[in-house]
Amino acid sequence: MVSKVRQKIVDAAATCFHEVGFNACGVQEIVDRAGVPKGSFYNYFKAKELLALEVLQNYTQSSGWEIFEDKSMPPVERLRVHFQTMADRYAAFGYSKGCLIGNLAAESTDGAPLIRKAIAASLTSWTKHVADTIRDGQLDDSVTADIDADQLARFLINSWEGAIVRMKIVDSREPLDDFFVVAFPLLSVRHQEA
Amino acid sequence: MVSKVRQKIVDAAATCFHEVGFNACGVQEIVDRAGVPKGSFYNYFKAKELLALEVLQNYTQSSGWEIFEDKSMPPVERLRVHFQTMADRYAAFGYSKGCLIGNLAAESTDGAPLIRKAIAASLTSWTKHVADTIRDGQLDDSVTADIDADQLARFLINSWEGAIVRMKIVDSREPLDDFFVVAFPLLSVRHQEA
Repeated sequence: MVSKVRQKIVDAAATCFHEVGFNACGVQEIVDRAGVPKGSFYNYFKAKELLALEVLQNYTQSSGWEIFEDKSMPPVERLRVHFQTMADRYAAFGYSKGCLIGNLAAESTDGAPLIRKAIAASLTSWTKHVADTIRDGQLDDSVTADIDADQLARFLINSWEGAIVRMKIVDSREPLDDFFVVAFPLLSVRHQEA
Repeated sequence: MVSKVRQKIVDAAATCFHEVGFNACGVQEIVDRAGVPKGSFYNYFKAKELLALEVLQNYTQSSGWEIFEDKSMPPVERLRVHFQTMADRYAAFGYSKGCLIGNLAAESTDGAPLIRKAIAASLTSWTKHVADTIRDGQLDDSVTADIDADQLARFLINSWEGAIVRMKIVDSREPLDDFFVVAFPLLSVRHQEA
């Protein structure tokens, strides 16, 4: 039964951090949403920051990274399905909520080094998956070889995260559509300057 | 003398919002930093949200948009100088601080519609400047005409904002360099798919 209380706290925190942000969401609000006594919080988590690490980990693990292992799918298609999966997820959350990791990143400060480190690690893993897929595409000539795969992966992910910042503000899918329309053709063009 | 107190509050809030975020920065901290009595805050601002609107406006006005009017400079160069000016600004603030507007955007919630509206307006103006410059480049054939100027402008700005989210996390200029290296050649390529 103990682990159920813990899970309730983690789930409530995930929703709360995503909806109102890490700083605006206090321990009291988390335990209220979880429907557990406040005292139980500190049985499981010494600090809200440590809880955020677990929320981050869960969010990352449910981000549809399995697709990167599906080598039966052409590389560019793998990338498209990956980003499409996330777009569907934002649609389900509501566009105005943004991306939990992006929100935490923007809200993070020098005073919360653990969260920053966890976000950096998550970004590094994500970038590696995308870069490996780009490399597969460079090998079969479906992705331009004129740009370094790691650099292109970082750019692609950053462009996506930026699209999400605007998605949140304009509360619509348009920025994600801009990403698909502009970024994907760029992957396959020959980069000869005019 | 009255206006000096007001200005002190606005300046202190700008630093505080940028450093620790809108939610984490209370009125008490703002007046402490400004060195003014707390009561004076409410003489000038009915709410912290209204103060944020003024901070946003000042930040936008000092974002180096004058360059867009300099038609003596080639369009792509105008864009490069514009983003370079912002990169220098982040270097001065410290990379880990991020972009004030991006931070506020990520932190904004449905519960603070005024801030969200102000950010949306700022994004719209910025996008118009960049799109007009892209159109100038499409006219003199220095920018690809294969992508709609408004869509390309939104994509470019979103990519930049996303680069800044990562810049904040990795506390380095690398994501901005990725932007310059990957995005700028893309502006001028012919988009014929391989």
